[in-house]
Amino acid sequence: MKKVTILGVTGSIGTQTLDVIRNDINNFDIVGISANTNWEKIIPIIEEFKPKYVAMMDREASVKLEKHCREKNYSTEILQGLEGLNYISTLAEVDVVVTSVVGMIGLVPTIKAINAGKDIALANKETLVAAGGLVMEAARKNHVNILPVDSEHGAIFQCLQGNRLENVNKIILTASGGPFRGKSKQQLVEIKPEEALKHPKWNMGKKVSIDSSTLMNKGLEVIEAHWLFGVDYENIQVVVHPQSIIHSMVEYVDGSVIAQLSSTDMRLPIQYAINYPERNNAVIDKLDFYNMGNLTFEKPDMDTFKCLKLAYSAGRMGGNMPAIMNAANEVAVELFLDYKIKYLQIEYIIEKCMNKFEHQTRPNLEEILEIDLRVREYVRNNYDKE
Amino acid sequence: MKKVTILGVTGSIGTQTLDVIRNDINNFDIVGISANTNWEKIIPIIEEFKPKYVAMMDREASVKLEKHCREKNYSTEILQGLEGLNYISTLAEVDVVVTSVVGMIGLVPTIKAINAGKDIALANKETLVAAGGLVMEAARKNHVNILPVDSEHGAIFQCLQGNRLENVNKIILTASGGPFRGKSKQQLVEIKPEEALKHPKWNMGKKVSIDSSTLMNKGLEVIEAHWLFGVDYENIQVVVHPQSIIHSMVEYVDGSVIAQLSSTDMRLPIQYAINYPERNNAVIDKLDFYNMGNLTFEKPDMDTFKCLKLAYSAGRMGGNMPAIMNAANEVAVELFLDYKIKYLQIEYIIEKCMNKFEHQTRPNLEEILEIDLRVREYVRNNYDKE
Repeated sequence: MKKVTILGVTGSIGTQTLDVIRNDINNFDIVGISANTNWEKIIPIIEEFKPKYVAMMDREASVKLEKHCREKNYSTEILQGLEGLNYISTLAEVDVVVTSVVGMIGLVPTIKAINAGKDIALANKETLVAAGGLVMEAARKNHVNILPVDSEHGAIFQCLQGNRLENVNKIILTASGGPFRGKSKQQLVEIKPEEALKHPKWNMGKKVSIDSSTLMNKGLEVIEAHWLFGVDYENIQVVVHPQSIIHSMVEYVDGSVIAQLSSTDMRLPIQYAINYPERNNAVIDKLDFYNMGNLTFEKPDMDTFKCLKLAYSAGRMGGNMPAIMNAANEVAVELFLDYKIKYLQIEYIIEKCMNKFEHQTRPNLEEILEIDLRVREYVRNNYDKE
Repeated sequence: MKKVTILGVTGSIGTQTLDVIRNDINNFDIVGISANTNWEKIIPIIEEFKPKYVAMMDREASVKLEKHCREKNYSTEILQGLEGLNYISTLAEVDVVVTSVVGMIGLVPTIKAINAGKDIALANKETLVAAGGLVMEAARKNHVNILPVDSEHGAIFQCLQGNRLENVNKIILTASGGPFRGKSKQQLVEIKPEEALKHPKWNMGKKVSIDSSTLMNKGLEVIEAHWLFGVDYENIQVVVHPQSIIHSMVEYVDGSVIAQLSSTDMRLPIQYAINYPERNNAVIDKLDFYNMGNLTFEKPDMDTFKCLKLAYSAGRMGGNMPAIMNAANEVAVELFLDYKIKYLQIEYIIEKCMNKFEHQTRPNLEEILEIDLRVREYVRNNYDKE
C-alpha cells in the first residue's frame, strides 16, 4: 500500500490522479491533500478518500472547510497556507508526493518533500524550470526518485528504461503545435483568451492551455528535460507532431530511436509515475493502429512562436534566468486571461524581463524566490506603461 | 573482447555483420566463419579478419579453399560440412554465435551452440519456426541469451528493456507490406521472380525477398515472436507500415505503446545483438523527423496474402506444423525462383502440405528434421503433378 500526498488535488492533474487511485484503491492510501481556495470541491474528496489531512492555501477557505468538517464529524484535520502544504509533504508516513499544483507555489513544498526523502511524482513544471539545479541536487543527496507526470517526460522516462543515460544521443520532445500552428505573427495579434484556451488535443487547465498555444509550455518542458535527464540543450530537439500520438522519443548513440505512444490521456503518465516501476492495467483507451490515420512531423516555427526560442535561451543561460522567464510568463498569462494585455505581449513581456533583470549564475533558493517575486511585481506594475 | 563465430558469413546478414565488426574491430575477434559454396568470397574475409576456422558446407568448395590457403600459407583451418559448422559453433573460446545462414540448415548448429552455453545472435528464422519449443527450452536450461538479429524482433527486444514480460499486453509487428501491397489476387497470378525480388524498403537475400512479397516473412516472424517473447498468437498483431520507420512495438497493460524507430539498415539490429546490453556509436543514418514524411498504418490483407494466415494457423496448431509449413515454403520459393511454379502456387503448396502431413504435437529434434526432409521431398516430386 503506497501512502500518497497530493498537492493541488482540485486541479486538472489532481482530479485525474484521484481517478487513477480510485481505479486501484487497494494499493493506495491518500494521507494528505491540498487545494487553493476551492473548499467545496474538497468535501466529496474527503468523503470518498478519507485523507488524514487537508491543507488549504486560502485562510478563509480553510476556516469554512474546518467548520463543515466539524459539523459532519469528519476526523480529517484541516491545515492552512504554505505551512500546511509543507507539513503534508513531509509526513513520516508518506511514500510519494504528487505535486500537481500549478506555478511557483509548488517549489518549496517539493524541495521540503525531497529533503524528507519522499519520492516525487512531479507535475509542477515550475519546480524544475525555476530551480532545477537545486531540486536535482537535493534529489541526488536524498536518493529520491523524481518521476515525471506530464506526458512528454513520462514518455522519455519510459523510453529510457533499461538503457544508460550515457548512451543517449538526444531527446526528441514532441509538441502538438497548439491551436495556432501554421498561423503567421500577424494572425496572432488579435487572438482572444477563449481562442487560445481551445487546445486541439489535450484538455488542460487555463495556464497550461495558454502556454501550450504560445509554445512556452514546450519551452518549459525543454528546461525540465535538461534537468530531469541531464541532457544538454543542443541535444534536446522539439518536433511538432500534431496528432499527439507519439509523446516523445529518445535517440541513442547507435541511431536507434525509442518512442512512447498512447491515446492522449494524462492518466497514463500519472499511473506510471505512482506505480513505477510497475505498470497497472489500463484506465485509458488503447491505440488502434488499423484506424489511426497518418502520423506527421514538422519543425516548430520559433520565429512566430518566440516563447520556445526564449526558453531555449533562458535554459542555456541557466542560473536565475529560467526563473525570471517563468515568473514573467506566469503573470503575463494571467494578464492575458484577464483581457489586460494582447496575445503577443506575452512574449514581449518575457523577453523584456529577461533583458532587464540581472543574470545570476548560481542563485540559492532564497534568491530564486526573491527574483520570482520581483519579476512578478514588475510585470504587474508596468504592463500598461508602454 | 567478444569472440564470435558467424554462420553464413557470405550472405546478406553475414556480410553486414562483418561490416559492424569492422567498425568496432578492437572489441571483437572472429574465431570461426562458415559458408555454403562460395569459397572465393571467403578469401578476402580470411585476409581481413584472420579467423582460426572456416567451415564450408560444400565438400568441393572446402577442398579448393584449403588448397588456396595452403599455397598462401594462411594458418586458418578449413573444416567441412555440418560437422564443421557444429565444431565452430561450440568452441570453448567462443562467446556468441551469429546464426545468419538461411533455412533449416541453421537449426542443428544453433542447438549445439546453445547446449555449449553460447549466446546466440539469431538471424536464422527457421530455427525458431521449426523448433521454437526445443530451442527456447535449451536456452533456458543453459542460461543462454537468444538475441534477435532481424529488425522486427530486435525492435521488440529493445522495446521490452526495463519492463517485465508479464506487463506486456500485445506485440505489434510492423510489416512493409512488400512490393505487392494493395494488389488483388488476380494481379498476383502472373508475378515473375524478378518483380518479387524488388523490395521497396529492404535490400535482402532472394529467399527473404520472396517471403517478404508473400507476407510469409511476416508469418515466420509471428511464430518467432511467439517463441522469443512467450506471447500468445492472439496477442501478436501485424500492422502494415509501408515506410518501415517503426520496426515494431510493444503494448503494455496500461495502454502505453513503446516503439523502436530507425533508418532501414540491418546493421542496427546486428550491432545491438552483438553488443547487448551496450549500444555502440552509430554506423547507420540517423532519422530526420523534420523531413520524414507521413507514417501510415493499415491492416494486412490476409485473404490476398494467404501465407500470413497460414503461418498464424500453423503457429496456433504448434508441434510439427510450423516445420511442415516452413519446409513447404522453402522448396516452393526455390521452385518459383527457378520459374518452375507460378507465384500463387507458393501458398497453394504450403496449404496442401499443411493438410497432407500428419500433425504431431510434441515432436523431438529428430522428428522435426525428418518431417522437414519428407515435406521437401514431397514438394520437389509433386509440384508439377496437378
